[in-house]
Amino acid sequence: MRDVRMRGFAERADVEDVERFLAERVHALGDELVPVLSCAGRVLAANIEAPRPVPNFDRSAMDGYAVRGADTFGASDYAPLRLEVIGESMPGRPFAGEVGPRQAVRIMTGAPVPRGADAVLMAEVCSENAGSLEVRDAVAPHKNVGTRGEDIREGDTVLHRGRVLRAQDAAILASLGCAEVPCVRRPRVRFVITGDELVAAGETPEGSRIVDSNSVMLRVLLERDGGELLPYEILPDREERIRQALGGEDADVVLVSGGSSVGREDFAPGLVAQLGSLDFHGIAMRPSSPTGVGRIGERIVFLLPGNPVSCLCAYEFFAGPTLRRLGGRSPRWPHPVRNLPLARKISSAIGRVDYVRVAIEHGLVIPLATSGASILSSTVRSAGFVIVPRELEGMAEGEKVEVRLYDAFLPDETS
Amino acid sequence: MRDVRMRGFAERADVEDVERFLAERVHALGDELVPVLSCAGRVLAANIEAPRPVPNFDRSAMDGYAVRGADTFGASDYAPLRLEVIGESMPGRPFAGEVGPRQAVRIMTGAPVPRGADAVLMAEVCSENAGSLEVRDAVAPHKNVGTRGEDIREGDTVLHRGRVLRAQDAAILASLGCAEVPCVRRPRVRFVITGDELVAAGETPEGSRIVDSNSVMLRVLLERDGGELLPYEILPDREERIRQALGGEDADVVLVSGGSSVGREDFAPGLVAQLGSLDFHGIAMRPSSPTGVGRIGERIVFLLPGNPVSCLCAYEFFAGPTLRRLGGRSPRWPHPVRNLPLARKISSAIGRVDYVRVAIEHGLVIPLATSGASILSSTVRSAGFVIVPRELEGMAEGEKVEVRLYDAFLPDETS
Repeated sequence: MRDVRMRGFAERADVEDVERFLAERVHALGDELVPVLSCAGRVLAANIEAPRPVPNFDRSAMDGYAVRGADTFGASDYAPLRLEVIGESMPGRPFAGEVGPRQAVRIMTGAPVPRGADAVLMAEVCSENAGSLEVRDAVAPHKNVGTRGEDIREGDTVLHRGRVLRAQDAAILASLGCAEVPCVRRPRVRFVITGDELVAAGETPEGSRIVDSNSVMLRVLLERDGGELLPYEILPDREERIRQALGGEDADVVLVSGGSSVGREDFAPGLVAQLGSLDFHGIAMRPSSPTGVGRIGERIVFLLPGNPVSCLCAYEFFAGPTLRRLGGRSPRWPHPVRNLPLARKISSAIGRVDYVRVAIEHGLVIPLATSGASILSSTVRSAGFVIVPRELEGMAEGEKVEVRLYDAFLPDETS
Repeated sequence: MRDVRMRGFAERADVEDVERFLAERVHALGDELVPVLSCAGRVLAANIEAPRPVPNFDRSAMDGYAVRGADTFGASDYAPLRLEVIGESMPGRPFAGEVGPRQAVRIMTGAPVPRGADAVLMAEVCSENAGSLEVRDAVAPHKNVGTRGEDIREGDTVLHRGRVLRAQDAAILASLGCAEVPCVRRPRVRFVITGDELVAAGETPEGSRIVDSNSVMLRVLLERDGGELLPYEILPDREERIRQALGGEDADVVLVSGGSSVGREDFAPGLVAQLGSLDFHGIAMRPSSPTGVGRIGERIVFLLPGNPVSCLCAYEFFAGPTLRRLGGRSPRWPHPVRNLPLARKISSAIGRVDYVRVAIEHGLVIPLATSGASILSSTVRSAGFVIVPRELEGMAEGEKVEVRLYDAFLPDETS
């Protein structure tokens, strides 16, 4: 690949070709054991079979009295029956004996149903007094008893590999006695942030200095996509320092922000080509056309433009799906979608993909900006974005378009 | 409120009454300063006005040459012009001098545009050789120059209070030089988990022991809702220990799991009534009817049923919206919604709200379970849930219903 510094891109790759290139080469990482308290949101790496049933014993589904159901037949408010209370079964403190004819054992929800009993009378239909129980309703055998394995039988496949674990999945795994859960390893991400003009987030930018704000945004996005950020520092625009940072082998993905275009001090593209391969540099899209994609060893390297909207857009198109794939997740866009009509047309160009920031007002989609890669506030004012595919020269007023939201919901959605 | 132990609930409150009770009493907490690197996802507690413009100087939007645009008029491939290169402006290392007539300064994207220049020629249309620049295209004045304040003007209100901060919002705040961001304080949650039968998550349940799995689920849900979990331990069913735990003043919300129904050792309801007020106990819903809501001092206390589906459902109806309100968020359900027709009818009862777990197959909603409060695996097999409001006795086959998803998307949704 020729050195593009101060010459510009001879030609730009299609977004779809870059996406295909990544889809063919990026696969889920290996697995690791994760403590059950941390597994929610992680991707399960193996099917889970129940090593024991849940519950592990017949348990009461009610607070009341464990009885032989047949003993209660005929009981009513008008013709109450009497049983003898011979003990109690509490959760964790079962009744050791057996329930005989016309006997009852006081029992709490979740406690083991004692031998001999086959049903639980609800507390509401009895009155206990000095060891004698007045029963004012009948209960059928098996009623109010949760049988061993009613939730999960031993050997059942409870959860399948590839699942993003829900809160309740984590609870089920804990119930089964799992201490650790096999999950797909989280992809490790190295930032290579370069720029003599940059000061770290939290500092005040004086004169011609600017704040390294891209890493602030990227760390949130990669967290959303299941990535794990390695420690990093802002590097000066010096080739040797950037070479060192690109060479670190602990990362699965390298995100280069700044110094990645065609400027004279944009060392990163040349270094990626030297150390590995620079597979794409220059992509037919707006914004983000100076984006690059390469590989160094097993690492995928993304050259993200320094302009913040370009950085966001390039991350979303290429780095985000890569992180999700590595983590065993669906590469699909993670944003909620709304299908709504355009308030006015969007102009684009055939052969180029556009990332159009849009507002939504009164159920209509209002295009705000396609260009203006440096105007990050456009992504703050927008509700989300519309992607114009390369085969279209635009989208017409009134056309229903897919808006991907930056937030979970629109502000005026109430349910 | 009478002691319901071993007697059952005399009457059950309407879900809507409990919701209204909470809506009237629960308001956003105070604010705290959050480091800008941690502010994404938090709720902004004050409007943010820009203390300085972004950018803070006129900057180049291209790699190329800063020039006086008028000097390039007439330049073309066939009639190139020549300018003298007098220096360079790099990001963080501006050119100190001034650009005069027929002069140019080599400039990188993001670098300050030197005095005298009013446009930037793209690198692609020039060739530099020994201090002389061949210019093959004209550039209009102001072209490729990002003016001071083009992204954000000084004094602009950039972000408004109440906003859930996006990745790009955090980047904007960093760009403005904010080190700390005023955010609504996260509600602090105390778990009061009681049960002699419980072993901690990660341990193996032997005999009649069961794993405290509700806290595994609840910690994930409260994290989703912006809550912060205080340290806790599993308590024995002893009134004094539970009283101590309920009394701790560091929490904003107390979630009691276990020992909260009408069993003989269900101490929590009586203690809440003693220490504060037990405003509701017993709610007309399925599952979760033994749910309680009360207050101790400034703390809102939720008595969550021990059965795991009831625990999940009671959390979602009452505790979740409370945490979101305290954290300054919308109380609305956080689940993505799909409107789809029912494959078969759902039966309910007028006067009761049902939380029906459903699967979704071929675009149809299949009710799986309404009862079975102990069958947590029903929430693992389900795609989400449908709520049947109290005024309906069910929903008909073919009727379009709102399904709230447990996951971000359905597995077969591709875009």
